[in-house]
Amino acid sequence: MNIGEILKIRARDLEPYIVKYLKDGSPENLLEAVRHYPRAGGKMMRPVVAMVVADAVGGKGKEAAPFGAALELIHNFTLIHDDIIDDDETRRGIPAVHVKWGVPTAILAGDALFAKAFEILSDIDVPDDKLRRILRLTSQSVWILAEGQQLDIDFENQSNITLENYLNMVEKKTSILFAAAAAGGAIIGGGTDEQISDLYDFAILLGIAFQLWDDVIGLIGDPKKTGKPVGSDIRKGKRTAIVIHAMSRYGRGHPIYDMLASVLGNPNATDGDVNEAIEILKKEGSIDYATKMAKRYVLCAKDKLDCIPESEHKDFLLALADFAIDRGY
Amino acid sequence: MNIGEILKIRARDLEPYIVKYLKDGSPENLLEAVRHYPRAGGKMMRPVVAMVVADAVGGKGKEAAPFGAALELIHNFTLIHDDIIDDDETRRGIPAVHVKWGVPTAILAGDALFAKAFEILSDIDVPDDKLRRILRLTSQSVWILAEGQQLDIDFENQSNITLENYLNMVEKKTSILFAAAAAGGAIIGGGTDEQISDLYDFAILLGIAFQLWDDVIGLIGDPKKTGKPVGSDIRKGKRTAIVIHAMSRYGRGHPIYDMLASVLGNPNATDGDVNEAIEILKKEGSIDYATKMAKRYVLCAKDKLDCIPESEHKDFLLALADFAIDRGY
Repeated sequence: MNIGEILKIRARDLEPYIVKYLKDGSPENLLEAVRHYPRAGGKMMRPVVAMVVADAVGGKGKEAAPFGAALELIHNFTLIHDDIIDDDETRRGIPAVHVKWGVPTAILAGDALFAKAFEILSDIDVPDDKLRRILRLTSQSVWILAEGQQLDIDFENQSNITLENYLNMVEKKTSILFAAAAAGGAIIGGGTDEQISDLYDFAILLGIAFQLWDDVIGLIGDPKKTGKPVGSDIRKGKRTAIVIHAMSRYGRGHPIYDMLASVLGNPNATDGDVNEAIEILKKEGSIDYATKMAKRYVLCAKDKLDCIPESEHKDFLLALADFAIDRGY
Repeated sequence: MNIGEILKIRARDLEPYIVKYLKDGSPENLLEAVRHYPRAGGKMMRPVVAMVVADAVGGKGKEAAPFGAALELIHNFTLIHDDIIDDDETRRGIPAVHVKWGVPTAILAGDALFAKAFEILSDIDVPDDKLRRILRLTSQSVWILAEGQQLDIDFENQSNITLENYLNMVEKKTSILFAAAAAGGAIIGGGTDEQISDLYDFAILLGIAFQLWDDVIGLIGDPKKTGKPVGSDIRKGKRTAIVIHAMSRYGRGHPIYDMLASVLGNPNATDGDVNEAIEILKKEGSIDYATKMAKRYVLCAKDKLDCIPESEHKDFLLALADFAIDRGY
């Protein structure tokens, strides 16, 4: 069984929680908007990580399920708001919440999901010192995630983004909920402080690897598998590690720099322009560069798993790390 | 000293908490957007209610300050999102967050404030059973608030809103954070379950009185004191108790009904149209009707205070109830 299949099976364990937590409410349109993404089914990677980590440190994975479900609702809340911000029109193959119900209801649906997540947390079955730790971890993660989303917006209008800037943004925007999942799972499972810290780091590194690989397959992957048209990041003007690598080799005025700058975020760029930009990024070695970096992050993430004993749960986490750079093509 | 002055003094006690909680973060634009409304200073009625109630049940008001500050941040987060939804351009005499920083940053600033509120709650100095109760109360209140905001949006496009519908919406949108403040203050102050319940009801009734009176002074008050141009609710198409009263007396096709229907939510309505509508609402007794209803709610709210012993704190809450219908003219 490959990791994708295992993820699907474990995600199914989570679904009853999501259904239960989103059972009641009114008015109907708000409730439907709230349920729209959770029902469309994501990979539920965050709750699965929380549960597997709880198992891996010697606890019971199932006890981390409500916490994991809360994180999944938070993830969905941030997707709703992010889709408004980026004006992305589809998600998981269905219309975005703001496309179907309008921006006002989408804003409220996100807020309501966020509120529900903390209602779930108020009731998790852990000793109280752990409860406070989980609450702090989760709320601080959402704050950091908002910072990451803001940086992502800001970077689209800045041409001097460094690799360090980019990785800082990715850590905040992509890794942070994974890290909360891993650290929270370790707390609930009774891990040591060292394990909690190392598993947090594992997830930070893993999140960055996932994002770097997303950047790569966004350019050379199979759009049917990535779910995004080829080069959509270029059209949006995203300064990925790949773009930063290529542009930092030349200065303004150099034809390669200027060509890339003219296509990035340009709504009038043709498919030909975007393809030409991708060819340049290949030729400059920038896609290889990001691929190698993603692989290095996976190796570093795996090293962090030295803190847990051998087990099928550890094997799952190791396989998840490999999966980060084995998708989308 | 009148209630407005007392509120100002007690609000000053809260400011250091707000400043402390919003001290750190990045990037600068997000942090400035997060601080924009809290810094502009509101009345801080919710935290003040929480503190006074904690005192009134025999506890220490100061111990409710962090909880109150968390509620104030939640209130501010909902204002930011509400201003986007209503496209209100100013708040507290300054540009709305989305006007100054754009909708994306405003969405994120609201989310970040919400996250910060729960970070504060994770750290409040109460026994753990109370912590869980406070968390549940607060998170459920935010969910209900989102329901109320959604109803408010929905009602603008519905002509068959009943008084019951309206009061249900107001309870959810306006009262709920007051009720959370009162019940939470009572929990932290060590009140009995009966006191917690009665003080919750007190705040629900008080919130409705505040809203009914806001509706009244929005039509016949002094715009310098209400902070809103006369009749702005009519222009927005809000179905207040006043409008519902007048329209329910006649059916579609009756000139009074049709005149009101033609002005409500009509962006092309002239000042003359709005003034004519207000004159009709006066003549039909609808403004008097809402005024009397507001007074009845104040009396019912005061009755709920029978659960607490006489004290200066009880006197403050009684005076706050009177203040609900003694503003804006």
